[in-house]
Amino acid sequence: MERENKMNSNISKATFSRLPLYLEYLKQILSEGKESVSATKIAKALNLGEVQARKDLSSVSGKGRPKTGYFTRELIAELEEILGVNKISSAVVVGAGRLGSAMQNYDGFLKYGLKITASFDEDESVVSSRKSNANVFHMSEFKKYVKENQVKTGIITVPKTSAQKVCDIMIKCGIKAIWNFAPCNLVVPEGVIVFQENLALSLAYLNYQLKSSEQ
Amino acid sequence: MERENKMNSNISKATFSRLPLYLEYLKQILSEGKESVSATKIAKALNLGEVQARKDLSSVSGKGRPKTGYFTRELIAELEEILGVNKISSAVVVGAGRLGSAMQNYDGFLKYGLKITASFDEDESVVSSRKSNANVFHMSEFKKYVKENQVKTGIITVPKTSAQKVCDIMIKCGIKAIWNFAPCNLVVPEGVIVFQENLALSLAYLNYQLKSSEQ
Repeated sequence: MERENKMNSNISKATFSRLPLYLEYLKQILSEGKESVSATKIAKALNLGEVQARKDLSSVSGKGRPKTGYFTRELIAELEEILGVNKISSAVVVGAGRLGSAMQNYDGFLKYGLKITASFDEDESVVSSRKSNANVFHMSEFKKYVKENQVKTGIITVPKTSAQKVCDIMIKCGIKAIWNFAPCNLVVPEGVIVFQENLALSLAYLNYQLKSSEQ
Repeated sequence: MERENKMNSNISKATFSRLPLYLEYLKQILSEGKESVSATKIAKALNLGEVQARKDLSSVSGKGRPKTGYFTRELIAELEEILGVNKISSAVVVGAGRLGSAMQNYDGFLKYGLKITASFDEDESVVSSRKSNANVFHMSEFKKYVKENQVKTGIITVPKTSAQKVCDIMIKCGIKAIWNFAPCNLVVPEGVIVFQENLALSLAYLNYQLKSSEQ
């Protein structure tokens, strides 16, 4: 029951992005034999504000115990559960071109228990050009694959002109969470989660920071 | 003088990501002949909280004039200046494999005035396999290219084992802003800006949201 509450507590992306730091630090101190640790100590070690660290940790695990703080093993387990590192989660890509192919071969996913198990494309020539690589299929096999493998997460790396069409197919096939790299907004029914990736905005922001720093 | 202050004001990524929305709306009302608009009206039209819209706009353009609000044309110009849409900014990619190649061909950059003008790779076979595409060069030409074209922004899409080495070369050649896709932290001297892209974390967060919503 308690765990369910935690998973429902809707941790922000900003907090989520700091969780791997906490996890790494806790594993390190556990290997040094420290079975408990205070939020203050964690904040100091990671160079974070104490208020922030307390807030982050309480959204993961509730408040620490007075005097003791957090039990290291317990907090590690809770962080791993939220980050999903101990359970392989599968995702599929639609759009087997350059970006889709890059996603399928990106070496940073496994650390988080993530695996892109297959990619799909409408274009038979794209599929056959990548046949030497495993698990590149024609779009006609998408439905069967997703059902059989109970995949819930889809990544869209097609051009923006076909992104909504791909999105509709995904939802029809039971995909519940979509990460969209096409530069366009998707319309989805309630209950489906969409993350809109905006690579251009990130690069524009980097350039803005650069310009600001030069003045 | 005023503009310089604005550019130094260090707009947050969250605010920055909303600026294209404001820009689109302002262009639309300008096309309808509206030469001025209040923050309240903008907030309502974009379905944003008024406090947030006021804060965003004041970081771009200072406070609106009493009663009048903002002059539409002026605010458009200021947003375009910050977003950098009217001036092409060049960036180069090191790592001409799948991800680098995807970046070089991504169709969402130009909207923000961004252009990836060349990519580089250590591996001669990667370079020659992509020779049909324009502007893929061997790493030995990096320094010359960056100097001649006064490129300040570099994107790293090599595996994590060579990311720091590439980063060091970039900095030596005058790159001041780096967007790193390799899943590792880079060490850079003061004055160099690094954005660490963490694709795995984004996907992990999407899965977390999915799990939360299913409970």
